[in-house]
Amino acid sequence: MKHIKVFAPGTVANLGCGFDVMGLTLDGVGDVLEVGVAENAEGFEIRNRSGVELPGNVEENVITPAVRALLEAYGRPVRIEVEILEKIAPGSGIGSSAASSAAAVYGVNELLGRPFSGKQLVEFAMMGEALLGGTPHADNVGPALLGGVVLVRGYRPFDIVRLPVPDNFFYAVAHPGIVVSTREAREALPKRIPLSDAVAQWGNVGGLVAGFALRDVALIGRSMHDVVAEPYRKGFIPGYDALKEQVLAGGALAMNIAGSGPSVFALASNYEAAVRISGEMKRHFEGLGIGCNSYAGRVSNAGARVVE
Amino acid sequence: MKHIKVFAPGTVANLGCGFDVMGLTLDGVGDVLEVGVAENAEGFEIRNRSGVELPGNVEENVITPAVRALLEAYGRPVRIEVEILEKIAPGSGIGSSAASSAAAVYGVNELLGRPFSGKQLVEFAMMGEALLGGTPHADNVGPALLGGVVLVRGYRPFDIVRLPVPDNFFYAVAHPGIVVSTREAREALPKRIPLSDAVAQWGNVGGLVAGFALRDVALIGRSMHDVVAEPYRKGFIPGYDALKEQVLAGGALAMNIAGSGPSVFALASNYEAAVRISGEMKRHFEGLGIGCNSYAGRVSNAGARVVE
Repeated sequence: MKHIKVFAPGTVANLGCGFDVMGLTLDGVGDVLEVGVAENAEGFEIRNRSGVELPGNVEENVITPAVRALLEAYGRPVRIEVEILEKIAPGSGIGSSAASSAAAVYGVNELLGRPFSGKQLVEFAMMGEALLGGTPHADNVGPALLGGVVLVRGYRPFDIVRLPVPDNFFYAVAHPGIVVSTREAREALPKRIPLSDAVAQWGNVGGLVAGFALRDVALIGRSMHDVVAEPYRKGFIPGYDALKEQVLAGGALAMNIAGSGPSVFALASNYEAAVRISGEMKRHFEGLGIGCNSYAGRVSNAGARVVE
Repeated sequence: MKHIKVFAPGTVANLGCGFDVMGLTLDGVGDVLEVGVAENAEGFEIRNRSGVELPGNVEENVITPAVRALLEAYGRPVRIEVEILEKIAPGSGIGSSAASSAAAVYGVNELLGRPFSGKQLVEFAMMGEALLGGTPHADNVGPALLGGVVLVRGYRPFDIVRLPVPDNFFYAVAHPGIVVSTREAREALPKRIPLSDAVAQWGNVGGLVAGFALRDVALIGRSMHDVVAEPYRKGFIPGYDALKEQVLAGGALAMNIAGSGPSVFALASNYEAAVRISGEMKRHFEGLGIGCNSYAGRVSNAGARVVE
């Protein structure tokens, strides 16, 4: 059996206006898996040595449908063993499930001699997301596999665009110890929205994509507004408006909800500011009696990769 | 009195998914004005020598509010004389009013020694659009002044992004002899739209902006879908679906409604295809007993400019 150790990074989906269509790659935080592959054999095993509690049943692990989708496309018998060594805490809002699915399919593809493209790997990894959210979506697994910023243009047919991120571009993420289910966050949204709001949103999506494509950090910051989901979802996050005001006044380029929350993220043009902002976010939630993990680091152009 | 002759090109607004936020510049078709300026004098005159019928009353000409907005910002007395030499036919759907407003403010700014930026000129020219449509909008005057593709990120504050267009990128436009007022075209649209449609639209807006920013012609073509306005507005354009099917089968990258219609446009990656497509469009409408003017040419990176 051949073995490989792979890393896939944490990601932030939505990016404000890019609700359901964009995600961005974090540096310095992610999952590490050891993947083993034996051709002309059968069987599938997942062992969790990460110290993070995960479902014991292999059918409830997001890795399973992702790897099965790959093997179905491969069409030949392969035995797979996955050992989870390091794991982003589930529910943290920085793409925990996506990092696992992405790392697993990336590792299997490497060991099989790379039969599949990055875009195909995204489609396989999406099946892991479907296990949790009901529908396959690519706004976390896209950047977890490909790095940078990924735009999901559409699903029928599946079409993604990878955009580079500027070199000096940093994130702060805070994960408050409250639970907001993806389903609850989705049900809070109206089924129909005013056309004028939709136009405002796609003006900003255009600005955000242009900002990344042209590496214009100020334009990225100006464009990261969400008039569609944030007004409803921020109600799940204690003191959200006050925190946002403070963080923006303190030099953040933008702040918004990470994915469907409850985590929040901010962007900054230097590392010191990102570290300071992550501290402010942590203190904000702790001041409200809510435990909080926070992270700061570089936004990354590198997605899933082999380590060691 | 100093004089200058200026040209501003025709433009296509909306570009499918970019409803209300994007416009693109056409080469080879536009307005030509002779603009005269005398400082420390007063008065405003417009003479029409284009042969195209225009309102005789200066207050009804789009040039007037555009130039007045500029002069108000300038803050000193200036006498202005404008002679319209060549004019896109009003109602043609390729930014006839925008070309006039853009050329006028561009010419005055040149003669005053360029006190204003391109973005400021767009804001002045928008006042001409407000005369016709009720609200100032920049999706035609933006590209008419700046060239290429212009994204209007938002109006409060006013923020536009200019994107380059690929070098080998051509348009076909057909203007059928039917009248669809901008107001009628707008009232056909629902006031609220399904969130899922809005997400599909901003995925495509992201793809379209990425396509221009990365000069990826295929991505531009794949992204130019409109699930919001086209389904309603195409009803004003006889045989629209059949024409679109024919034009796409014949090699166009995309086809959609130009602005609020009734003109239609298509994009192609070579000039011969654009010419052929413009002929097909013309024959389509003529076959339905509707007179039609058609144009084909290069999509342009050059906006308003001095001629001679």
